[in-house]
Amino acid sequence: MKDLLIKDLSEEDKGKEVTLRAWVHQIRPLGRLIFIILRDCSGMIQAVVKEDPKLLDFAKKLNLEDVVEVKGTVIPSRSKIAPIEVQVKSIKILNKSSPLPLDISGKVPAELGTRLRYRVVDLKRPENLAIFRIQAELMDSFRRFLRSKGFIEVSTPKIVAMSTEGGAELFEVKYFEYKTYLAQSPQIYKQLLVIAGFERVYEVGHAYRAEKHNTIRHLNEYISLDVEMGFIDNENDLISLEEKLVKYMLKSVAENCSHELKLLNVDIPTVDRIPKFTFPEVIEILTEYYNIPEYKDQTDLDPRGEELICQYAKENYDCEFAFVDLFPLEGRPFYTMPYDSKLGRSFDLLFRGLEISTGGQRIHRYDLLLKRIKEKGLNPENFKYYLEAFKYGAPPHGGFAIGAERFTMKLLHLKNIREASLFPRDRYRVTP
Amino acid sequence: MKDLLIKDLSEEDKGKEVTLRAWVHQIRPLGRLIFIILRDCSGMIQAVVKEDPKLLDFAKKLNLEDVVEVKGTVIPSRSKIAPIEVQVKSIKILNKSSPLPLDISGKVPAELGTRLRYRVVDLKRPENLAIFRIQAELMDSFRRFLRSKGFIEVSTPKIVAMSTEGGAELFEVKYFEYKTYLAQSPQIYKQLLVIAGFERVYEVGHAYRAEKHNTIRHLNEYISLDVEMGFIDNENDLISLEEKLVKYMLKSVAENCSHELKLLNVDIPTVDRIPKFTFPEVIEILTEYYNIPEYKDQTDLDPRGEELICQYAKENYDCEFAFVDLFPLEGRPFYTMPYDSKLGRSFDLLFRGLEISTGGQRIHRYDLLLKRIKEKGLNPENFKYYLEAFKYGAPPHGGFAIGAERFTMKLLHLKNIREASLFPRDRYRVTP
Repeated sequence: MKDLLIKDLSEEDKGKEVTLRAWVHQIRPLGRLIFIILRDCSGMIQAVVKEDPKLLDFAKKLNLEDVVEVKGTVIPSRSKIAPIEVQVKSIKILNKSSPLPLDISGKVPAELGTRLRYRVVDLKRPENLAIFRIQAELMDSFRRFLRSKGFIEVSTPKIVAMSTEGGAELFEVKYFEYKTYLAQSPQIYKQLLVIAGFERVYEVGHAYRAEKHNTIRHLNEYISLDVEMGFIDNENDLISLEEKLVKYMLKSVAENCSHELKLLNVDIPTVDRIPKFTFPEVIEILTEYYNIPEYKDQTDLDPRGEELICQYAKENYDCEFAFVDLFPLEGRPFYTMPYDSKLGRSFDLLFRGLEISTGGQRIHRYDLLLKRIKEKGLNPENFKYYLEAFKYGAPPHGGFAIGAERFTMKLLHLKNIREASLFPRDRYRVTP
Repeated sequence: MKDLLIKDLSEEDKGKEVTLRAWVHQIRPLGRLIFIILRDCSGMIQAVVKEDPKLLDFAKKLNLEDVVEVKGTVIPSRSKIAPIEVQVKSIKILNKSSPLPLDISGKVPAELGTRLRYRVVDLKRPENLAIFRIQAELMDSFRRFLRSKGFIEVSTPKIVAMSTEGGAELFEVKYFEYKTYLAQSPQIYKQLLVIAGFERVYEVGHAYRAEKHNTIRHLNEYISLDVEMGFIDNENDLISLEEKLVKYMLKSVAENCSHELKLLNVDIPTVDRIPKFTFPEVIEILTEYYNIPEYKDQTDLDPRGEELICQYAKENYDCEFAFVDLFPLEGRPFYTMPYDSKLGRSFDLLFRGLEISTGGQRIHRYDLLLKRIKEKGLNPENFKYYLEAFKYGAPPHGGFAIGAERFTMKLLHLKNIREASLFPRDRYRVTP
């Protein structure tokens, strides 16, 4: 087993004989020397071949991405980039690579479609590993924070017979003789678990939307960071929890991914308080401050509105995040707790012009829930098992969900959400 | 927001006025007193109602699972079970419960089918919360261990156009105009990520098997704890890693779930070395030691064989785990690295008579992989994107996967794997 990662080597190892197993990331002949940049999951190091004519000849024939075992001596580096390099004594090829369909050195940028077609090769770019290390830190810090607050991790079914929002935008699964769907969100199940006395739950899992949109901000399969908790007073408890959570996640990425952030040339914003606007306030800002009368009777926010509200928050509160609370019930799911006859206790979290999270207080009373299902034109029979649970002790509760890819995309200034998904699933893409 | 969990109360709080928000778990009238056991996600506490006739009258009418807000004073308890209790000053009903369809006190055990029909009520039993807290610790300790070894967490697509084993036992998903399936395992994608230079990856995610078995050890949707790593010498590196991992997971559960283990009356086994047998040795044990000649020409292990090998390991090595290595290629997937013409570098981990994990070294050479796909009667065209990746620098690699529910089931002596799944999906169950 490989027991030495490249990052483990330091100046203290000067003079040591080492064995590195890695990929050939770059080859640069320079007079009678050949420099090879070796790459593994932990980093890169320069290996130098010199003098030995047989070895020089062998090194000349290496391909990029050849998998090699290099033995050599750790020596001080002549370059300014790194303090050490390895003087090569032997190279063994563990597996030969063919010429690559994509440049991965960053010299010849490829178009995203090509990159996704050859995604495995594309992912070899160190920038990609950095993106997904940061995404992994987002997921892990999400869990750490919630665990510390007494939340329990759960895993809910993705094959469901009930739909969350009532039938639209669902992928159908042939499950033996049953007609089932891929869950649009763990909404129903996380609520059931709060009622079941788990009280505080979180889940990191896939969610599925059969949306035909083919935009830079939609995926049909995405990672949903879900939270649900009982015994809240109202949605403001959730907003306060999410604010603390997001701050913790940002801090964790800043602390634990400094190398990756440097590589991607990204600074993590420090956040103090996230401003909160109500939906009526948002409409006022859009119609009055930005002077766009068309927003007057809107019941939801469009992408342009999200961008302007973030711009407003940035200019007036020096914050790139903004909560929008009390969305009109009309555009929100049946389980949304009403605030009054028009508005619901439902909020979005916007970040740099994009909704990255939605949450709210849920209805916990059976009668009101049944009424709202009917008012939304849904069939209560389709929600039988869900509704039934509210008869057996449902506490006041609510939760939220963060889209991991959207958060990653905005945090790292990626231009397309597909760059924040290892193997994105979109309207026309099911491979690789 | 609820800021006091029941478990936070201790003897130091004697005399304090507290507000508890919880479920009514039990009610016991005793002469002119009424004892109420309150339950939240963190534990239980006794609340005592006395003297106040109005309050006694109110308390008498409480239902089990009513959601209540109780204000009262922390006092020393007269019972021996707990040092403190709460003397009630007021009770407010946050949501009323109907009479329960199931007894959740443990006095009247219900049949599993009924329990799963009313799963939300069934999950209210403290034993169930304990089971899933332990499962959460298994998942979390799995991640912690691998993170500490330089592994990166990934999330791979569950909607796939390629099948891992070639078309059998797949759930079909209607994905717009494409015919896709639910991934049987992240096998293909975790291998692709190793090739892509991620080198060491893990994933906790759902896997789907359209098996028609309706047994106590099969689920159609289960949690797969997946690991894959590059630059191994052979499968023994993986066996060694998995041994360390399993020991860490057991230790973590023992340390972090003592309360839950006590409630379930379970002891966590301490493991030193896990014995390893080769498949030919296993056949010899079964035919010679256990004198069952029918095993002579077997190419796979059946449940009885798994039980006997675990019995053998227990009797001869005092270990409830056993690795079986070098399974015949015939019963293993095409990507299995051959050991010789008959056997593959593929292993199982058995625990208390059940296979809880499968792993092995994979083929990393394009030519051999293509040959094995053809020999298995599969169409290379269906593996186009997978095969292609092996041209661009695939290191020697391998991995394994642990079934979270199987591990939980065996660890906690559960009789049926459905008890280790919050909302199990089986041959005839897609709700709740």
